Amino acid sequence: MTDTVISSHKKEVVIGFERPFVVIGERINPTGRKLLAAEMAAGDFSRVITDVEAQLAAGAHMLDVNAGIPLADEPAILAETIKLVQSLTDVPLSIDSSIVAALEAGLAVYKGKALVNSVTGEEDRLEAVLPLVKKYGAAVVAISNDETGISENPEVRFAIAKKIVERAADHGIPASDVVVDPLVMPIGAVRTAGRQVFALCHRLQKELKVNTTCGASNVSFGLPNRNGINAAFMAMAISSGMTSAITNPLHAEIMTSIMGADVLMGHDADCMRWISKFREAPPAGADGAESRGRRETRRRRATT
Amino acid sequence: MTDTVISSHKKEVVIGFERPFVVIGERINPTGRKLLAAEMAAGDFSRVITDVEAQLAAGAHMLDVNAGIPLADEPAILAETIKLVQSLTDVPLSIDSSIVAALEAGLAVYKGKALVNSVTGEEDRLEAVLPLVKKYGAAVVAISNDETGISENPEVRFAIAKKIVERAADHGIPASDVVVDPLVMPIGAVRTAGRQVFALCHRLQKELKVNTTCGASNVSFGLPNRNGINAAFMAMAISSGMTSAITNPLHAEIMTSIMGADVLMGHDADCMRWISKFREAPPAGADGAESRGRRETRRRRATT
Repeated sequence: MTDTVISSHKKEVVIGFERPFVVIGERINPTGRKLLAAEMAAGDFSRVITDVEAQLAAGAHMLDVNAGIPLADEPAILAETIKLVQSLTDVPLSIDSSIVAALEAGLAVYKGKALVNSVTGEEDRLEAVLPLVKKYGAAVVAISNDETGISENPEVRFAIAKKIVERAADHGIPASDVVVDPLVMPIGAVRTAGRQVFALCHRLQKELKVNTTCGASNVSFGLPNRNGINAAFMAMAISSGMTSAITNPLHAEIMTSIMGADVLMGHDADCMRWISKFREAPPAGADGAESRGRRETRRRRATT
Repeated sequence: MTDTVISSHKKEVVIGFERPFVVIGERINPTGRKLLAAEMAAGDFSRVITDVEAQLAAGAHMLDVNAGIPLADEPAILAETIKLVQSLTDVPLSIDSSIVAALEAGLAVYKGKALVNSVTGEEDRLEAVLPLVKKYGAAVVAISNDETGISENPEVRFAIAKKIVERAADHGIPASDVVVDPLVMPIGAVRTAGRQVFALCHRLQKELKVNTTCGASNVSFGLPNRNGINAAFMAMAISSGMTSAITNPLHAEIMTSIMGADVLMGHDADCMRWISKFREAPPAGADGAESRGRRETRRRRATT
């Protein structure tokens, strides 16, 4: 029953085993987005504002903020972006960088309890990032690779996750503030990638009692209809115990799959979120029961 | 590693733990389809022919055939429908009736090894249906309810499934020829319905070592966007070990979810089924990788 609380100055989001799945919007990230990178480096944050609004409208519960731009002053840009995003929304943020100084600059300006993205099992990362997480009272994403790289052996990835959780405890960070990313490999390259993650999510919940997250889109790398694979993956990961993901909420298939999985896990009380999202606009090809729903909606409107 | 082999006179379909998921098309069923019922009772099978073609085009691996029409001569109509369907296609069939005489009439004309749908844990059903299954060398769907009705307690449903498997063995029918339906209740009414089925599928595979099936659409009864719930359910059920379902292959979301789940379970070798289905027609909103796939397809065409 582990709950990981992330907050802004006035809003909490709780990642937990018996909670609705938490979607962390991945869009504010210049990696692979040349235009956004150039704009952010030049101090133009208009696209960041659009990305904030679009992701929230699509149902993101948190936003990941990354400012990884080659040759730019990443700590300064990340801090500026975080201040901007927090002026626009009160959803909690994940502060995303591979540069420790950028994480610290972001944490220094962040209002609330952030999710630091991320620490790995590499010794130098552990000793640089965990003290920061402790100092700012944050939570942290723990990525299950180390100096030896990403193992294809899920036992090794589990052992690294366990090591990070233990090391966090040494720094005074409870397991409830460590969200493990079991690492999702492309299913087109590693046939067992899906089942590895499903088995790891199960073990991480049962044995380490930690919440989990992942960069979900990676699983479909190189395949056509990526959203179709990603949507199935999310539902399967949720049924295996995954409790959050850093993903693109603008893809409707993925959000529908996540919301449907919440219903099927019993995490959408009385299906109210599902019903309020879909009762007004049944999709094309709606069957008899949906037509009834539509008629009922019309009737309700007619009488109110 | 249980394999359930179902066949027609010239084609085998194998339901199994390490096999692609088997979709049994549910459309040839007059229940709730007044027009089809009236036509079939009057000897007009034109809609059956259309249903066969549409379901096969949509990717069904087997077809369920039901002729349950009130006041009609169900055994005669079921036998006639089966003969017709077997003249149209060589996919194996599931012979679906609650009337034992109709099951026998269907089995008598069926060419191959059919899937009998179904037997329950009720004493009179067990003693009427299992001898038929044995006599015709068929396989059978075992529905986990009995004289006391459908229990909301999954322990009770598991115990009934176990009883049917044991009773089948007494009749000389191996567990590999029993496909258990753990019973899917509407999630809108029973909040734990999803997790019950997922847990049961896991146990049925690990402990009873049997294949599983279900009437999947039931889970979304009464909710809007039923296909969205059904699609998430299928992916989650497959990751829990479900190996077949009686469902409507005409809903693209459901078939895409099943195919995606097969990929993620490692049951679509080299993702070839996924790629051949989707590389020609990426959906709207396709991202960069899909565009690359499309360009590659164009290039291949240009050079061949």
